[in-house]
Amino acid sequence: MTARIDLDATLVAIAALGPLDDAAMAAATSHLDGLTKPPGSLGRLEGLVVTLAGITGDPHISMARRAIVVAAGDHGVTRQGVSAYPSDVTAQMIANFIEGGAAINALAAAADASLTVIDVGVGGPIPDVATGPRGGRLVSARIRAGTADMTVGPAMTRGEAIAAIGVGLWAVDELRSAGLDLVGIGDMGIGNTTAASALVAALTGSSPGDVTGRGTGIDDIAHRRKVAAIERALARNRPDPADPVGVLAAVGGLEIGALAGVILGCVAARVPVVLDGFITGAAALVAATLSPVVAERVIASHRSVEPGHAVVLDRLGLLPLLDLDLRLGEGTGAALAVQLIDAAVRVRDEMATFASAAVSGPVGSA
Amino acid sequence: MTARIDLDATLVAIAALGPLDDAAMAAATSHLDGLTKPPGSLGRLEGLVVTLAGITGDPHISMARRAIVVAAGDHGVTRQGVSAYPSDVTAQMIANFIEGGAAINALAAAADASLTVIDVGVGGPIPDVATGPRGGRLVSARIRAGTADMTVGPAMTRGEAIAAIGVGLWAVDELRSAGLDLVGIGDMGIGNTTAASALVAALTGSSPGDVTGRGTGIDDIAHRRKVAAIERALARNRPDPADPVGVLAAVGGLEIGALAGVILGCVAARVPVVLDGFITGAAALVAATLSPVVAERVIASHRSVEPGHAVVLDRLGLLPLLDLDLRLGEGTGAALAVQLIDAAVRVRDEMATFASAAVSGPVGSA
Repeated sequence: MTARIDLDATLVAIAALGPLDDAAMAAATSHLDGLTKPPGSLGRLEGLVVTLAGITGDPHISMARRAIVVAAGDHGVTRQGVSAYPSDVTAQMIANFIEGGAAINALAAAADASLTVIDVGVGGPIPDVATGPRGGRLVSARIRAGTADMTVGPAMTRGEAIAAIGVGLWAVDELRSAGLDLVGIGDMGIGNTTAASALVAALTGSSPGDVTGRGTGIDDIAHRRKVAAIERALARNRPDPADPVGVLAAVGGLEIGALAGVILGCVAARVPVVLDGFITGAAALVAATLSPVVAERVIASHRSVEPGHAVVLDRLGLLPLLDLDLRLGEGTGAALAVQLIDAAVRVRDEMATFASAAVSGPVGSA
Repeated sequence: MTARIDLDATLVAIAALGPLDDAAMAAATSHLDGLTKPPGSLGRLEGLVVTLAGITGDPHISMARRAIVVAAGDHGVTRQGVSAYPSDVTAQMIANFIEGGAAINALAAAADASLTVIDVGVGGPIPDVATGPRGGRLVSARIRAGTADMTVGPAMTRGEAIAAIGVGLWAVDELRSAGLDLVGIGDMGIGNTTAASALVAALTGSSPGDVTGRGTGIDDIAHRRKVAAIERALARNRPDPADPVGVLAAVGGLEIGALAGVILGCVAARVPVVLDGFITGAAALVAATLSPVVAERVIASHRSVEPGHAVVLDRLGLLPLLDLDLRLGEGTGAALAVQLIDAAVRVRDEMATFASAAVSGPVGSA
């Protein structure tokens, strides 16, 4: 990190954006309707083209420079036995991202996207590995070595939560300086579905039992332990749903904070940002609680298996593009949606018009 | 066409295939479970890898050589005013496919698939155009210049229906001789949702009103005309649901027959074939009525807006990968699913294992 980015200034910039750009959306629709297909017949692909126009203000915006940003952090609540995997896996998986052996490496390559992995708060040292042919770039921006156990006190201080958001804001700024058209976001952090469930329960008022799933694949006993840990954390910290930064500090995660920062940074810069599953959804809920217009300026990639994700999507009014029973995270669903966005933009840019291809319009038309 | 392929011999070959290859599917699952992700956490992407193994018998089968095959034909029933577009559009759109200006050109390119367009029964001359940079290859295999109006008699003879299926069988044979790993199919034919609705009503016993949609985008009055035309065609021809070739001849289409042939040819050759929307679904219903094992050896790409498509998917027991409100045809949904299959195969082939990446397994595991 070489720059300090201000959350308050970002929120002011977002508030000044106003609504989605109606004129750009109308121009995109008009362009699509002139292409050699019945109007609207490509359904949500056409919707994506219009959404991109509304967010960016440009009906022909390029989506060529794509980045997947994965934020990583560890969670003190893992000592309550809430995950199927040990915390060591967070650092080990970052090494795997750098060497290019994780699912997100394969899917970012398929989406022709770069991969940036940010260590915002991993617990232990990251294994020293070489960058593989499809490997990601590691950014070290560790604020603390994992959160504290939220069942006995706040996961982090308010200052640390704001700093985590700042890491995400900075990452967008840094990526933009190299050229950036589209961002997909993802997470890595053993224990982070516990944090996300607590955060979503606190911000929406949902019962922990309704927003808590099986994460990496825990059994019934561990699931009961996970719900009970969340209930204890909420009772201990009593986070105020009107104060999303306070909720993030009390029961969130460092990577969730950074992801909220990436979302806010992209929205402020009018760069389309694609959410992944439950963890990035929780980050979007933090961002949208800070600034409601965020919800109409992000793209939901998929509906995760995690029950809390549906609650988040519903609260944000987002209809995901895909429903493929994914529950991995890492940005895998976002990368698949980036492929769909690529397809939508190809349709927009590569098709002939009725006039140019000498194809007749509907019966009775001119 | 240079070869004659026999439908009966193909059906014998399919019957001899037996069930999906359990050993290959188990090997694929075991391989996936060793990769650095919680078992099953990539949901339907993992399911695709297992399905490809089951169909082909090879858990590591390549999907590199991909073809989109679009069959085109015209429909005499258009003179009943069932479509929003004139029949001329079928030939004009074939010219557009060759020049590279249609949606399927953009999406086949995105899926890194070749495009073969087969004229099985277009009504008029195909405009003379040059092949564009993303253009398709035209195969002329016209059996007749469009079907007859099914409201006054059979759409075609039984011999013509069998010949149409033969065109599809031949196309697979020809593509395989050049090397073929994966096929996506699509259709072009003004009026063909009317034929597909009649065909699905005849084969499933559904009421025409329940399986008839708005095709390219007709209004309420034209929709009533379309349902009435289908009812008249079924009353006039009285097709026997136990005789799918007879149903195809009575109320089907030449391109629907060819697509049934492509499906049967792929199934017989153990080449995975990806369906598109309603028209290819109707073709799959014909193929599966001829040989029930077809249903477990095809991949459903998406759920179309056409109400008859859901009936077909339900009858075949297929769960589509995508639900994006598409209603264009041309193989556009199939091409999007080919991208997902590519992503699934990349995950299978490019990821590290827990052992190779030195990532810890679940707590309590060895």
